[in-house]
Amino acid sequence: MMQQAAIPLGLELRVLANSPDESAAKVIVDTRLGDYRDLSVLREFAAGCDAVTFDHEHVPTEHIKAMAEQGVQVHPGADALVHAQDKAEMRRRLTEIGVPCPAWRTVETAADVAEFAAQNGWPVVLKAVRGGYDGRGVWVCDDENEAATVVANGVPLLAEAFVPFERELAVLVARSPHGQGVSYPVVETVQEDGICVEVLAPAPGLDAEVAAQAQRIALKIADELGVTGLLAVEMFDTADGLVVNELAMRPHNSGHWTIEGARTSQFEQHLRAVLDLPLGSPSMAAPYVVMANLLGGDDPDTFKRYEHVMAHDPGVKVHFYGKEVRKGRKIGHVTALGADLDDVRARARHAAVYLTTGEYT
Amino acid sequence: MMQQAAIPLGLELRVLANSPDESAAKVIVDTRLGDYRDLSVLREFAAGCDAVTFDHEHVPTEHIKAMAEQGVQVHPGADALVHAQDKAEMRRRLTEIGVPCPAWRTVETAADVAEFAAQNGWPVVLKAVRGGYDGRGVWVCDDENEAATVVANGVPLLAEAFVPFERELAVLVARSPHGQGVSYPVVETVQEDGICVEVLAPAPGLDAEVAAQAQRIALKIADELGVTGLLAVEMFDTADGLVVNELAMRPHNSGHWTIEGARTSQFEQHLRAVLDLPLGSPSMAAPYVVMANLLGGDDPDTFKRYEHVMAHDPGVKVHFYGKEVRKGRKIGHVTALGADLDDVRARARHAAVYLTTGEYT
Repeated sequence: MMQQAAIPLGLELRVLANSPDESAAKVIVDTRLGDYRDLSVLREFAAGCDAVTFDHEHVPTEHIKAMAEQGVQVHPGADALVHAQDKAEMRRRLTEIGVPCPAWRTVETAADVAEFAAQNGWPVVLKAVRGGYDGRGVWVCDDENEAATVVANGVPLLAEAFVPFERELAVLVARSPHGQGVSYPVVETVQEDGICVEVLAPAPGLDAEVAAQAQRIALKIADELGVTGLLAVEMFDTADGLVVNELAMRPHNSGHWTIEGARTSQFEQHLRAVLDLPLGSPSMAAPYVVMANLLGGDDPDTFKRYEHVMAHDPGVKVHFYGKEVRKGRKIGHVTALGADLDDVRARARHAAVYLTTGEYT
Repeated sequence: MMQQAAIPLGLELRVLANSPDESAAKVIVDTRLGDYRDLSVLREFAAGCDAVTFDHEHVPTEHIKAMAEQGVQVHPGADALVHAQDKAEMRRRLTEIGVPCPAWRTVETAADVAEFAAQNGWPVVLKAVRGGYDGRGVWVCDDENEAATVVANGVPLLAEAFVPFERELAVLVARSPHGQGVSYPVVETVQEDGICVEVLAPAPGLDAEVAAQAQRIALKIADELGVTGLLAVEMFDTADGLVVNELAMRPHNSGHWTIEGARTSQFEQHLRAVLDLPLGSPSMAAPYVVMANLLGGDDPDTFKRYEHVMAHDPGVKVHFYGKEVRKGRKIGHVTALGADLDDVRARARHAAVYLTTGEYT
């Protein structure tokens, strides 16, 4: 998806891939194969690049530092990115700058969790400090026994109070090295089993003051943490106000709607930000935009259902990621736009459900 | 630009290029180098492709026929494409199906031209039957002496009556092998020295009945000629009605506005058409869309003026084609969208003029 944005800007991309079968490798001519955990691979890769950025958060912080010390423009930098890599570090820093978070502490034993629950109540949400993704690395524990099972996995853990939320929101902002910031409209993300299935832009019925507050929080985080590039801030909308859940520092699933739905797609915005070019307009291309994820179903042959979806709704946009279909895996998304939210949402859902299951909704 | 459309559709492109420096070769992994005039090269290239199409009209008709006879899906087919390759063939067929054309005849001598002028008046427009492009291969002759100079070039010529037009229009339609057709809104193309500098979508102030008639003409041509893929029909808007000027059977400069300005870009539409997939919605993403071409200026370093344009107008979209800058060459385009035509047009012009000349308009 970054390549779609790079082509019109006249930017040439180079990608470091694990294998030539990866989605990006299929559409980027200058593909280098190698292990992103190997500093010598990273150094060779970066030679001659104007800027280096990431589409995941797993590149070791110390390698990013080492590259930056040698003059490579790495965006986001290690000091910012660590907050998207390490949830304990994120909570520490957000608390320090006064951003609303759930009660939290790092825990090492089930007794630590019980002690935390004594103050904040059960259930307690345990999160792997590093490496979680799409609901993996997150456990909602109702008692000390359940906590003990999670602790036995042996991974460093963060305990957070369970937040009774009304819905989940996300704010996507961009910040450039020279400090320009821009925020997209606040969106609602609809989750099932910890995986985002639908994004509604803008978040329906959100109070304008709350929306502005959400954008201020996201821009503040970007500024205080020195983020360069995109920052996605996932929030809980609760009866007591907004609470920050997670951070990501890259183009994010909650921003895929921007490809057709905003004047500047998140991918173009990220490229402009990491190259320190002036940022693009985040304004919407239609009153409502709905993105629905395509999650791999039982039948891997989604292509045969393609024709129906295209014929049924000539305005829906289908995006496939060129990934092998596996049950539950995000293999693509669809986007619908229009003036009537219910209609737009129904169109996106129909396309997503039909493409993945063949069921007619 | 085709690659931008192919990525989300999950389609893998293969391109036949003359050199690895060509724009398409820079962004398409499966690039084959070879001469499109060589049938054996074309055959090898086509092996394993679901469909083969073109981004220019110069592949020899007989090679296209030979490929199709061997079962290659070539769109548009030779019988249709010949009307975009051979202007005499085009005039003959359009006249046959009752499409309004200027008076015309093929000519071999200056005396032929004079005879034609005796009936239709001077000036006479002489056109190379094959190979013209962007004003090249077109000569407006005021008398027999001028005609004699053109005839002396030795290329087969078509004579056409000079059409006193009010403005130039273009209609872009798509037609799929199973016969589905779709028309984009009629646009106005603004030419300078025979080169399109600006496209206004929709054509400002065009009478709805004339617009519908223009679309009917274009769809009729696509249907009667058996076009598969895109067809761009350039027309003159005259006091006596519409007159067809030129045909192109590929994504066309007059349709670049659709990338952000329509729900389905012309490149996505062409891919859908040549693969016989249902066609996408041609509806506009904003009330007015203006595309301005970037023509190479004296200073080849356009990139340094990029920042100003981006900072000046965060909503304007810049497209570079990755071509070396040569004086007068189309090296990219810019697109602006909005509700006020004058404003949108001024924004597109400012960006285009500044990017190519550094002048502030």
